[in-house]
Amino acid sequence: MITKNKIAKIKKLHQKKFRDETGCFIVEGTKSVLEVLESELVIKDFLATENWKNRFLTPKKQLQKVEIVSEKELERISTLQTPQEVLIIVEKPRFTISELDNNLPILALDDIRDPGNLGTIIRTADWFGFSQIVCSLRTVEYTNPKAIQASMGSFIRAKIIYADLTEICTQMKGKRKIFGSFLSGTSSNKAKFSSNDMIIIGNESTGISPSLSSLIDESLYIAAAKSSKAESLNAAIATAILLYQFQLSQN
Amino acid sequence: MITKNKIAKIKKLHQKKFRDETGCFIVEGTKSVLEVLESELVIKDFLATENWKNRFLTPKKQLQKVEIVSEKELERISTLQTPQEVLIIVEKPRFTISELDNNLPILALDDIRDPGNLGTIIRTADWFGFSQIVCSLRTVEYTNPKAIQASMGSFIRAKIIYADLTEICTQMKGKRKIFGSFLSGTSSNKAKFSSNDMIIIGNESTGISPSLSSLIDESLYIAAAKSSKAESLNAAIATAILLYQFQLSQN
Repeated sequence: MITKNKIAKIKKLHQKKFRDETGCFIVEGTKSVLEVLESELVIKDFLATENWKNRFLTPKKQLQKVEIVSEKELERISTLQTPQEVLIIVEKPRFTISELDNNLPILALDDIRDPGNLGTIIRTADWFGFSQIVCSLRTVEYTNPKAIQASMGSFIRAKIIYADLTEICTQMKGKRKIFGSFLSGTSSNKAKFSSNDMIIIGNESTGISPSLSSLIDESLYIAAAKSSKAESLNAAIATAILLYQFQLSQN
Repeated sequence: MITKNKIAKIKKLHQKKFRDETGCFIVEGTKSVLEVLESELVIKDFLATENWKNRFLTPKKQLQKVEIVSEKELERISTLQTPQEVLIIVEKPRFTISELDNNLPILALDDIRDPGNLGTIIRTADWFGFSQIVCSLRTVEYTNPKAIQASMGSFIRAKIIYADLTEICTQMKGKRKIFGSFLSGTSSNKAKFSSNDMIIIGNESTGISPSLSSLIDESLYIAAAKSSKAESLNAAIATAILLYQFQLSQN
């Protein structure tokens, strides 16, 4: 039986303010939770139904202290419309710029505001081998429940850092080639990528901010069909196509 | 002043059941509404604030009978968290298979369930020149408010048909090449596309259904980085990459 106090404490983590204060966030669903268990992330609380515990926790994993909850209780604390029998509270890992590997590429996100988009971007980056993601300070946090959900566990494998992107790019200028996604420039399929490039994706409606634009070595665009009347692509879609082209060039 | 009766009638269109019954759906936001006005879609009701009307309706467009509403009233009927001063009710256009152009490509969606994903797919298809979209009967309707929102007006330019995909593919077999998105097969960048191909995308978690799989001429996959531990890509992302490759091959 979970205490009222604990329910209240966990529900607070639905809000950014309390995630910031505590440095903790919620992860739900069997797939993501099992992946967290295999990772180095620190689990602060582990809530599951009796059924889930018996089904998924092997003796080794049972070292984790699990609090048994009913499905009704889970419904009260879950961020999901359909709770999935398990919910954990995880400590947000802290990475610094100095921990970034100079030989690996970086995906930089300039003010991505939609958490679903951000989660999809993290999932896509994982697929295409981008494990280093630098987000501008106004990018939505990846610990937002919708971002965690959309990332399908990929947030666990990425070094995600929030920082002043203009500062970072100024530091990196000349050390890596910096590409940016725009509506004109070099066609994405003609880009010459190297293994440690940085690729910047801009905000869903305003694109890459002017202060960053001036630091970009090469602008890339994704050609539309001649007949197309669409004005733009979703930011996660644009990211996917550029990372796809990057990945093709690495073989 | 909008009547209570009308508010109730419009609010019902938030639900699939009533969209099905009436054959009508809601479109919100300046960009999409102005695009509907330029299209052949039939507008049944047109609600806007005084301010929006004065700002956006030119004398020609004023032929449309606009009902003035307050922001408070819009809040009560909107499907959005932040209503955008204009909301219209549009009649769902009906296309049949016989109206599909044999010379143009077709995007086929097999049980896409997430409305945001569907809307993003429609927007992406517009960008890459796919104006014909055939959806399986279990694909979420594109008139779902979240799909309309994510499509960013692109639903207006597409012929979207809901039908039994197995039947359609049986009919089309031999007349167009049928590609399907899988986790193995030909690498997407090696595919040889023709101008009137059909590309099938499967459900977010179960992929393309077995009855359809047997009708597919060539399976395509999107190569992951060697280091990648992600299990799959989001359906809209997979769609984007295949349509991007198709579009590159058309130049």
